[in-house]
Amino acid sequence: MIKYLIIGILIGNYSALLGQHPSLTLTVAGVERIQSGLGSGTLFDAQLAEIRAEIDNAIADGMHVPIPKDMAGGYTHQQHKSNYKLMHKAGNLYQITGEEKYAAYVKEMLLVYAELYPTLSLHPTMKSYATGKLFWQCLNDANWLVFTSQAYDCIYNYLSAQERQKLESELFVPYANFLSEENPRFFNRIHNHCTWANAAVGMIALAMDNDTLLEKAMYGLKDDGVSPEKMETGRGYIIKNGVRQKGFLAQLDHSFSPEGYFSEGPYYQRYAIFPFLVFSHALHNKRPDLKIFEYRNRILQKATNTLLQLTDPNGNFFAINDAQKGMTYKAFEVVTAVDLMYLVDHTQKNLLEWARKQELVSFDEAGFLVAEALEKTKVNEPAKESQFFGDGVDGDEGGIAAMRLGSTELLFKFSAQGMGHGHFDRLSYSLYDSAGEVVQDYGAVRWVNVDQKGGGRYLPENKTFGKQTIAHNTIVVNEASQFDASVKKATRDHPTLYYADFSDSQMQVVSAVENGAYNNVSQHRTIVLLQDPEFDNPLVLDFFSINAPIANTYDLPLWYCGHFMQSNFNSAKESTSLNQLGSDAGYQHIWKESESEVDNSQLRFNWFGNKQFYTISSYADKNDKVIMGRAGANDPNYNLRSDPVMIHRKENTKNALFFNIIESHGKYSTTSEIPSNPYGQLEGLDVIYADENYILSTFSNANSTWQVFLSLKDNDEEALHTVVAEGKTYTWQGVVKIGKAASK
Amino acid sequence: MIKYLIIGILIGNYSALLGQHPSLTLTVAGVERIQSGLGSGTLFDAQLAEIRAEIDNAIADGMHVPIPKDMAGGYTHQQHKSNYKLMHKAGNLYQITGEEKYAAYVKEMLLVYAELYPTLSLHPTMKSYATGKLFWQCLNDANWLVFTSQAYDCIYNYLSAQERQKLESELFVPYANFLSEENPRFFNRIHNHCTWANAAVGMIALAMDNDTLLEKAMYGLKDDGVSPEKMETGRGYIIKNGVRQKGFLAQLDHSFSPEGYFSEGPYYQRYAIFPFLVFSHALHNKRPDLKIFEYRNRILQKATNTLLQLTDPNGNFFAINDAQKGMTYKAFEVVTAVDLMYLVDHTQKNLLEWARKQELVSFDEAGFLVAEALEKTKVNEPAKESQFFGDGVDGDEGGIAAMRLGSTELLFKFSAQGMGHGHFDRLSYSLYDSAGEVVQDYGAVRWVNVDQKGGGRYLPENKTFGKQTIAHNTIVVNEASQFDASVKKATRDHPTLYYADFSDSQMQVVSAVENGAYNNVSQHRTIVLLQDPEFDNPLVLDFFSINAPIANTYDLPLWYCGHFMQSNFNSAKESTSLNQLGSDAGYQHIWKESESEVDNSQLRFNWFGNKQFYTISSYADKNDKVIMGRAGANDPNYNLRSDPVMIHRKENTKNALFFNIIESHGKYSTTSEIPSNPYGQLEGLDVIYADENYILSTFSNANSTWQVFLSLKDNDEEALHTVVAEGKTYTWQGVVKIGKAASK
Repeated sequence: MIKYLIIGILIGNYSALLGQHPSLTLTVAGVERIQSGLGSGTLFDAQLAEIRAEIDNAIADGMHVPIPKDMAGGYTHQQHKSNYKLMHKAGNLYQITGEEKYAAYVKEMLLVYAELYPTLSLHPTMKSYATGKLFWQCLNDANWLVFTSQAYDCIYNYLSAQERQKLESELFVPYANFLSEENPRFFNRIHNHCTWANAAVGMIALAMDNDTLLEKAMYGLKDDGVSPEKMETGRGYIIKNGVRQKGFLAQLDHSFSPEGYFSEGPYYQRYAIFPFLVFSHALHNKRPDLKIFEYRNRILQKATNTLLQLTDPNGNFFAINDAQKGMTYKAFEVVTAVDLMYLVDHTQKNLLEWARKQELVSFDEAGFLVAEALEKTKVNEPAKESQFFGDGVDGDEGGIAAMRLGSTELLFKFSAQGMGHGHFDRLSYSLYDSAGEVVQDYGAVRWVNVDQKGGGRYLPENKTFGKQTIAHNTIVVNEASQFDASVKKATRDHPTLYYADFSDSQMQVVSAVENGAYNNVSQHRTIVLLQDPEFDNPLVLDFFSINAPIANTYDLPLWYCGHFMQSNFNSAKESTSLNQLGSDAGYQHIWKESESEVDNSQLRFNWFGNKQFYTISSYADKNDKVIMGRAGANDPNYNLRSDPVMIHRKENTKNALFFNIIESHGKYSTTSEIPSNPYGQLEGLDVIYADENYILSTFSNANSTWQVFLSLKDNDEEALHTVVAEGKTYTWQGVVKIGKAASK
Repeated sequence: MIKYLIIGILIGNYSALLGQHPSLTLTVAGVERIQSGLGSGTLFDAQLAEIRAEIDNAIADGMHVPIPKDMAGGYTHQQHKSNYKLMHKAGNLYQITGEEKYAAYVKEMLLVYAELYPTLSLHPTMKSYATGKLFWQCLNDANWLVFTSQAYDCIYNYLSAQERQKLESELFVPYANFLSEENPRFFNRIHNHCTWANAAVGMIALAMDNDTLLEKAMYGLKDDGVSPEKMETGRGYIIKNGVRQKGFLAQLDHSFSPEGYFSEGPYYQRYAIFPFLVFSHALHNKRPDLKIFEYRNRILQKATNTLLQLTDPNGNFFAINDAQKGMTYKAFEVVTAVDLMYLVDHTQKNLLEWARKQELVSFDEAGFLVAEALEKTKVNEPAKESQFFGDGVDGDEGGIAAMRLGSTELLFKFSAQGMGHGHFDRLSYSLYDSAGEVVQDYGAVRWVNVDQKGGGRYLPENKTFGKQTIAHNTIVVNEASQFDASVKKATRDHPTLYYADFSDSQMQVVSAVENGAYNNVSQHRTIVLLQDPEFDNPLVLDFFSINAPIANTYDLPLWYCGHFMQSNFNSAKESTSLNQLGSDAGYQHIWKESESEVDNSQLRFNWFGNKQFYTISSYADKNDKVIMGRAGANDPNYNLRSDPVMIHRKENTKNALFFNIIESHGKYSTTSEIPSNPYGQLEGLDVIYADENYILSTFSNANSTWQVFLSLKDNDEEALHTVVAEGKTYTWQGVVKIGKAASK
């Protein structure tokens, strides 16, 4: 249920700043405040100096406004992108320094665009469902307008009425109409592209005080004539309580879960939040009556804090779904978010903690305030804690759990599909520690903006490998991806959180169920981070039970990060030739380095990554197989990284339990050349009892044996359980019970 | 000619400190000096606290002196290694703090060893040409004695005469005799193993004031009965002017070139220098009359400075020959060297610069002095400059050149074989910048001390791949390694420096010749680092001419570091299966990913590594081939890294010129997602003229054309050259002439 509609109050010019300029992301009062505080050596001063140097250089270099031609990454794309950023900075510089040359620069460039724009038909690439004019897609055209509208606002009073008239009638209004009326499939759906479109049209509307455009931005186009079938892959056409959802407020309603999680994952959340923020910033200034930052129980504040929590120990966003690795909390969108949320609510001191780590502030009043506060405030390292984030508008469509114990962090994913950028990876996880990735999510097969790699777009292997189930640390049934890799099928359904408990500082538990990914196959995975005094680092306990009425092949990949050290199974690599592991569903992209039958009830595999040693111990059945592989087959353009994988395979099996423990146990320095604890401690994993209702298992090191009891069908923490196995009776209370059985 | 023999002055007890203890690496006066300066918060204080905590823990933990059993990396090996380090530290702690518990700890452990040692026969592994008793090889036994003799010296006066008598007669003298008289093939040759042996025997001799042992240490065993054929692979049996070379002074004569370069390369120089230093430190204190640090024109000072110069921009030693990557100037041996050389000569301020970067000092008077000096002295970043280091005792057996321009560093290798640890890689190079390795030397196939990997020893692939020519960035003729990978053949001969010029701050040139590596094949490579205002970073110009009377196949590998981005040749990777590239000489270890014929006179290949973009442009002939490959075939135990290579192949060719230019031209941040300059600028490489005497070539970007003229047979800088080519007459003076021909 969407309870937050603001209806009918908009079009009444409540603005406190009507007619004032600047009034979008800078204000007259804000500029005065900045000017009065300059020169005290803050981070803001440092950035001001840098930006001034950058723009002075750009002015000296002269203007480049080429005829649009190239894809992302190409010259004309990068140049127009550069131009809007330059205009935005120059506009702000004009306000902050008062120096006319910066206003003149913006004016001159805008007038060049005003000459160019009317001459443009659609971008010659014609490769998008919504081809732009300056860029290959309308999305980038919207980006341009979001930045440029701020620049226009900054120099509004510097321009003559005639110049404004020319710019508005020949550039901005046609530009806004193109993004809205002329591209309803782009403008009128619920999608991050559309947020940019709404924000772009809304911001230029605010800059021009154009209520007609503002209404479109806030509530969408009234009659767009678009049917659901005509929408890009059918997504984003949402009718709720009989009302078609569209416009900026509807985006706020539908883009985040109640906790502020964005269904495509943190990489896109970082991207998607920006137009929300920047337009909201302008609404906050120009239409404070709308109380936009209080909308939907302060959803933008929640989304910002959620985003910050979705970083690994090195500050990288968890690379789930389509995500380029190495995107961090230092991204300018996150800097903008942190600073703006602090502007809106000074009580959020945690934002100052992040701002200090960012070592950057936004180039506006919010950034100025944060820089000033950082001078006066002693801040700690920001706290990150184990947390569950529900997915879906109502937060009830599965979710993700960030599990944290010491410097060990594990992201367990059982969210809904994540729309077009989702991967078929339900119940997968990725593991991190302060040294880096331990067990990876491959991420997207893409080099964003890198022209050499398909113009910076998604590469073909993203679909054929990156999204496929085998590229993730979760079970693949019969060498086919979940939902046969159909977004449509996957969108109908979502996993379910079964149980989560973060209350014990020595043990974090999350358990989730997925029954739709494969027909007639039910899957239940429980992950425990356990800190025990006998181990230096937390153990990762992983119980994955899978049940089906007919026999299947189950493959559980482990995309370990690092170099093979040792295995207790025969892993001898193929010597003279390698073949692709399979023919489809991502298997065709893996070179098979070895395959062996297991002759041991326990697999042990030891690897070295990030200068540390790790060991996975896995409970195994006779006839299980282990495949060692490496990404890179069927990859003619070398788009894939050559990353290794171990696959635990069970063939011809109905019900199965995968029980794994990962130890992080030692280090090695190539300077001291001294390894510490190169081997794991674990000696035995055993399953005492397993059925659909219960798992009773043990694991041991040289000194002790631990028992782990799980209840799989009753998640009541108070419930008492009794299981008789091998003549013994086991009783416990609750969903997960771990105890040291006895010293050996 | 060895001009530095000290003869006959030794055995006369000139010692100033005779009978004093400590007198090896600590002295009574030094201890007083340390004690008087403690507590002022220096680096030394910090380390003292750390070492005290470590030894207190060890004392609490109790003593572990196991029966020797394991290979390197195994428990007993690591424990005995740990013990000698503990004793050494505890001995020093006793002296510095005066606390008896530390002396008691050393005494107790020594007495345990005195009980154990007489019971030991040879180590059960029997895998070395000189099997030890505590360890699998005498080398490690010698390590033990070098450290333990210092500990003994520190607690000498704490022991009763009876205890000393027991230790000396039952442990130290038999131990020293075992390392010398009983292992003449180990003790009496010229080799870094033997330096340890000499130092071990010499240091315990100094500790015990035992002149008989000291004479053996300094001059070797008189009649060892060993013939050259019985030496380990025939190496180290040297007769000079009719005199058999042996003993510590002979090691100093033969281990380094006159500039202080150690033939096995910097990784082993770092290791080998330690026994020289520590024994010389003791001689310096106990036998100042020997003026050991002035020996051979201060060879140890030169060796220390040379070692420091042989680091890449990130402080890693250039990984030539058998070298584990990631060994840095922070290694304890280098800390020892820096501090000791500063103790010996306070005027060497550059050592303080390195000491500051090391963030460590040695746990003795030298370290104390350095720590004290660092508190008082403002130090700069240490200077590193382009430099040539001759190889061989007389410095005339080829050498290596560290070429530096800006943050670009290139190591060009044309040294002699480097004994048993040498690789067959004449005329190869490796390239670095501040971001890391750009074009790599693979290094050794070994994880030192890592038990999982063959007990930490050299892995089989070190011989079959790591040492082979194809694993290096130099030409392979007919898929066979230089000298057919025979150390014996390779040792007979060495490359020659043809020309080097570091005088121009914009252009560094080194040129070298190798005519022995392949029968009837002459090779001449000239490498230029060129900084031109049109390029952001220095260009690497590489001219490799090869001449033979009969047609051959020439392969020039480029072990680039990073990810394939783009090529202008057909490099489509094999899709469904990979095969080994060849059957021998290291080729069997490379997966062939693609092979294509060149249809362009210029190859261009662009890659991304260390967040930077690089492009190699290569002049090519019709019918040349390009092979893309990856290490890892015939590697059943996953010992090889999965590193990529590009191989430029010329088949059926007598005389050939490889002309390559590497550009480092851009960056990419995964946080900003903005690539700068992803493409190289170069558009055309051409050869105007090439024969045995001259190369005239050009290269161009969009604006300009440069000409490069090389004289290959006349290295006189004054000589005038005239070449007529394509109807034009070119004249220039000197060996290398580069000029901008004209703007296009």
